[in-house]
Amino acid sequence: MAKRTTKRTTKRAPKGSTPGAAGGAAKRREGGAAQAAPAAEESPRGRMTKQGLQAVRDRNLKRDGETLKQIRTTADDVHRNILKGVKPDLRLPVRSLSNVTYSQQRGYFEIGRQKKVRTLTVNTVKAFAQSLRMMSLSKELVETNDFATKRDAYYQSKNWGEAMFQDQVESDTVMDDIEALFSIHSISREQLRFVPDEHGGAVAGELIVYDPDLDTGEVERIDCTRFGSGAYSIPSSVEHLSFETRARFILAIETGGMFQRLQSHKFWKQAGCILVSMSGVPTRSTRRFIRRLSDAAKIPVYAFVDCDPYGISNIYRTLKVGSGNAAHINQFFCVPQARFLGVTPQDITDYKLPTHPLKEVDVKRAKDALKNDPFFRHHRPWQKALQQLLKMGVRAEQQALAKWGLNYVIEEYLPRKLKEVKAFLP
Amino acid sequence: MAKRTTKRTTKRAPKGSTPGAAGGAAKRREGGAAQAAPAAEESPRGRMTKQGLQAVRDRNLKRDGETLKQIRTTADDVHRNILKGVKPDLRLPVRSLSNVTYSQQRGYFEIGRQKKVRTLTVNTVKAFAQSLRMMSLSKELVETNDFATKRDAYYQSKNWGEAMFQDQVESDTVMDDIEALFSIHSISREQLRFVPDEHGGAVAGELIVYDPDLDTGEVERIDCTRFGSGAYSIPSSVEHLSFETRARFILAIETGGMFQRLQSHKFWKQAGCILVSMSGVPTRSTRRFIRRLSDAAKIPVYAFVDCDPYGISNIYRTLKVGSGNAAHINQFFCVPQARFLGVTPQDITDYKLPTHPLKEVDVKRAKDALKNDPFFRHHRPWQKALQQLLKMGVRAEQQALAKWGLNYVIEEYLPRKLKEVKAFLP
Repeated sequence: MAKRTTKRTTKRAPKGSTPGAAGGAAKRREGGAAQAAPAAEESPRGRMTKQGLQAVRDRNLKRDGETLKQIRTTADDVHRNILKGVKPDLRLPVRSLSNVTYSQQRGYFEIGRQKKVRTLTVNTVKAFAQSLRMMSLSKELVETNDFATKRDAYYQSKNWGEAMFQDQVESDTVMDDIEALFSIHSISREQLRFVPDEHGGAVAGELIVYDPDLDTGEVERIDCTRFGSGAYSIPSSVEHLSFETRARFILAIETGGMFQRLQSHKFWKQAGCILVSMSGVPTRSTRRFIRRLSDAAKIPVYAFVDCDPYGISNIYRTLKVGSGNAAHINQFFCVPQARFLGVTPQDITDYKLPTHPLKEVDVKRAKDALKNDPFFRHHRPWQKALQQLLKMGVRAEQQALAKWGLNYVIEEYLPRKLKEVKAFLP
Repeated sequence: MAKRTTKRTTKRAPKGSTPGAAGGAAKRREGGAAQAAPAAEESPRGRMTKQGLQAVRDRNLKRDGETLKQIRTTADDVHRNILKGVKPDLRLPVRSLSNVTYSQQRGYFEIGRQKKVRTLTVNTVKAFAQSLRMMSLSKELVETNDFATKRDAYYQSKNWGEAMFQDQVESDTVMDDIEALFSIHSISREQLRFVPDEHGGAVAGELIVYDPDLDTGEVERIDCTRFGSGAYSIPSSVEHLSFETRARFILAIETGGMFQRLQSHKFWKQAGCILVSMSGVPTRSTRRFIRRLSDAAKIPVYAFVDCDPYGISNIYRTLKVGSGNAAHINQFFCVPQARFLGVTPQDITDYKLPTHPLKEVDVKRAKDALKNDPFFRHHRPWQKALQQLLKMGVRAEQQALAKWGLNYVIEEYLPRKLKEVKAFLP
């Protein structure tokens, strides 16, 4: 099926978004594409040229080359040790909370230096073989320009003879180990061509996505302003995508209902932005999409979620700094440039929003964040905001703004908020 | 915000898809668009003309006119009774399982004729007023070409004075009553402009969607063959969409992972079909989208789900005949023309698929379907299939086909199955 006519890579622009970046981006916008983008094939602000399309393919090819090289190096080490008569081993980062730190400078939870060494012995022979087979599957996927979900990988193993997985938990653990192993070399699971089973969120607004076809290498140009009331659905893996945008910021929205309102009324046109629907805690591909897009276009990300401990500490915190439980992937998935537009506890008062009382689980979550979460402990304004919320004893949904009219959010709330991005919570 | 420059309606073509329709559609396809579509603006098989675009707008306008007329008639009745000094009432269909029958002829669970009468008395004055306000909100939404989610409606009520809802359960109940009331006149909740908060599924393949802009009335042309590895994300409401397609069938897929495989390798091109990702039990808008598309294009729907009681009796059964609990909406949302491609219990044997043992909940679900579900009780082949599954004591996921190679599903399984659509389970 998958003829190998193209390969993929990722482009990562230096981080450059700052809280005040919206204004700067506006200036760039006025400057026009040509001025803003001296190297059209590199900058997502210029219009994609023919050379640009070729560059998309070349970059993907190069990135895949790096992945293959890293797999080969790891396998060669094992092979060399065996030839020398030495027991081969794999050094896997320890994936536990004890090996996680919050990096203030980078702005996310980082995995530490602890390693567990998987040496080839009589007892570990099966897990060792499975790790090598999993790496080998990844190599094959990159070479044939294909991909596999966790489930696919598990079922593939049914042809691995004695290295076959007995159940999917086993298989997932080995995949997580391999992911952690290669994350040290800044290679993500998606670059290893293992993709999530779940879909990404929906996107609409001032954005062109370039997506090279798996089989033919032809690059599809997807204009996210042209979806009517529908939207662009993010694929499982976004590593191979390139972007072109003149948007000033990305608005990451918690609920499908709010996204639909902003999309149907084309809020992105009036605000010059890109809308992303997270539908609760964003999936891997949604987070990675936002991160890559924000990095490449150097535009900030504003989160618009419910004002409750779940919206703040689960959705927003996960989007921005990732999670401690999966610290080895945060370097790819977190969006440290994200800022919190609202709904803030102060908004509840300022906009006289209808509220619900905080549930027990809300109170527990907020107190836990204040006491144990390095992110909230690091940011004084967040401590104040959470304490304010606990004191008020209520929560408010983003759709509560509908009290003032269905489109109050478009006509009043968001424009007013966007005039003061510096006041956004960190 | 929402200037009123256009209105919407729904086009419903007569049901015409039969199990063997794929062959017929293939012939129409060869015949070319012009021949197949004598009236280009009516048939989704012809290419959309300028007149066609105008017809899309006109149809939407007409449908909205009908909705407004029905709201007015209902309100007028109440008004007239008040003027006559008679206590006004609203006759709402009883929404309970005792008022549900399985219509063999129509192929779905239908709501019966039992009505609960809400007469205006001292005790019912608040609920009565709320029902009228909810209808009034709907009228306003149609007139301003806008929409509201359940939550939006709840928060809007905060400005209804004494008719304000105290919590959302109250508000949802009144909305469900209004939905049931108007369903008698074949008007769906979406036509009343109350839309779900959740997103629709993802779509890719041989399909053009026409979507008139809410504010300008300009019709967007969305080509679902042009999304690369991404997809078209179905909006919350699909009543206003029109379609153009030469596809032979719609393939409704359970998992995001399988959808991604078929989409990335452009299976729709080779098979001449439209792929829809359901991601589990399909949402309202996904079901309505499939139904409207299948009706309009007169093409069959094939379901491709896991072989377990959940995939069969929850996902497939809900897609095809709807649910008893919400029988008043099945006329809009069920897809009676759907058929079950697989994975079937027989496939587990034929394709030697890796399996998992049935869990207790699986066994319970299957036994319950055999004993109590009118749909399964009506279809002998389904009884045999469920009994076979229970006897085998195992279940298989659709991704289990990956045992034979990641793209075995594209190269072998689906082509082989599609040669024998008559053998699909009903």
